[in-house]
Amino acid sequence: MAAVDYPKPIRDLIVHLKQLPGIGPRSAERIAVWMMQQGRATTDPLSEIVSRAGSEIVECSVCGFFSTVESGCAICEEPQRDDTVLCIVENPTDILPLERSGAFRGQYHSLRGRISPLDGIGPEDLRIGELLSRLQAGGFVEVILALGSDVEGEATANYLAEILQAREGLSVSRLAQGLPAGGGLESADELTLMRALQGRTGLR
Amino acid sequence: MAAVDYPKPIRDLIVHLKQLPGIGPRSAERIAVWMMQQGRATTDPLSEIVSRAGSEIVECSVCGFFSTVESGCAICEEPQRDDTVLCIVENPTDILPLERSGAFRGQYHSLRGRISPLDGIGPEDLRIGELLSRLQAGGFVEVILALGSDVEGEATANYLAEILQAREGLSVSRLAQGLPAGGGLESADELTLMRALQGRTGLR
Repeated sequence: MAAVDYPKPIRDLIVHLKQLPGIGPRSAERIAVWMMQQGRATTDPLSEIVSRAGSEIVECSVCGFFSTVESGCAICEEPQRDDTVLCIVENPTDILPLERSGAFRGQYHSLRGRISPLDGIGPEDLRIGELLSRLQAGGFVEVILALGSDVEGEATANYLAEILQAREGLSVSRLAQGLPAGGGLESADELTLMRALQGRTGLR
Repeated sequence: MAAVDYPKPIRDLIVHLKQLPGIGPRSAERIAVWMMQQGRATTDPLSEIVSRAGSEIVECSVCGFFSTVESGCAICEEPQRDDTVLCIVENPTDILPLERSGAFRGQYHSLRGRISPLDGIGPEDLRIGELLSRLQAGGFVEVILALGSDVEGEATANYLAEILQAREGLSVSRLAQGLPAGGGLESADELTLMRALQGRTGLR
């Protein structure tokens, strides 16, 4: 005699919840039964919010950030931003962390991915054409490559650096690599220490 | 100048996701932006599944487990169960863990809560009337109180023990308390050790 399981609607719900990032089988079950104990007062609004976010959010055609309008998102349209500096990121999800650092108030450009031959993603799959059009339109004097420090991030940065350095009057930089804030040397791996040494900054 | 935030549909989604058990602000944000990157192919089915589970799942009127029909859930209706033993639990969510232990194949009865004066929950708020009706209908010779070992669980067990012990021909027991499986003595608290000593079982 097989052990009894939840009714099918709950099993289906668990299957879907498990697909969410960071949600394992046990969390998915816990969340599903919690929802069932809360009842429709919780599931109906959640269902509607998920559906609405999925249908209303589009990619800003300029910077690639999440937006409710196709052209001109909250960031692109914000006045008082520095329109001469462009920060290039892999994904729209990278934008708010940079924004929250408080260290950048220029414009952003999400590539919607990074070069990854193993996944079959080449430069033509990224928003590089859009990037070149923006630069062509003029006004930017600096480009910051805020890409990941893993292999794909490096490859993408190298590719872009090569294209962009040919443009006159445009300075290209990338994010510093080194010790993360609050981290001791004992918790840093060798590559991080090598980069931190290479990128050491002089003190007076 | 305030930092830019996500568009409202995403902020709403994050607010709702944060209410789920075990989901903190960072997880909620991560899940929300992941959904937005997946798009409607993910949000539409999830929304529907949540809504369907919320509307289709009801409480079985007999045992209190999750069911798609009001009377006679998968457990109550399962043939070959031992209809003479009744296991009383606090919540429907307690049933499957017991079922999966493989050590019980009788019937269940969820109280839909436990006595908790601080939360204003008294015996009249629980499914105790339904329990007495089931016992009255006859057939059960043993009742197992599978309630929590915290203060509210103890109070509920004591209350039920008093009511049930008056019934003739009904044996009442409760779950053993002691060391959890795989736990060393050094990780057990004093109360657990006291209970484990009190409940020690003889060896030959």
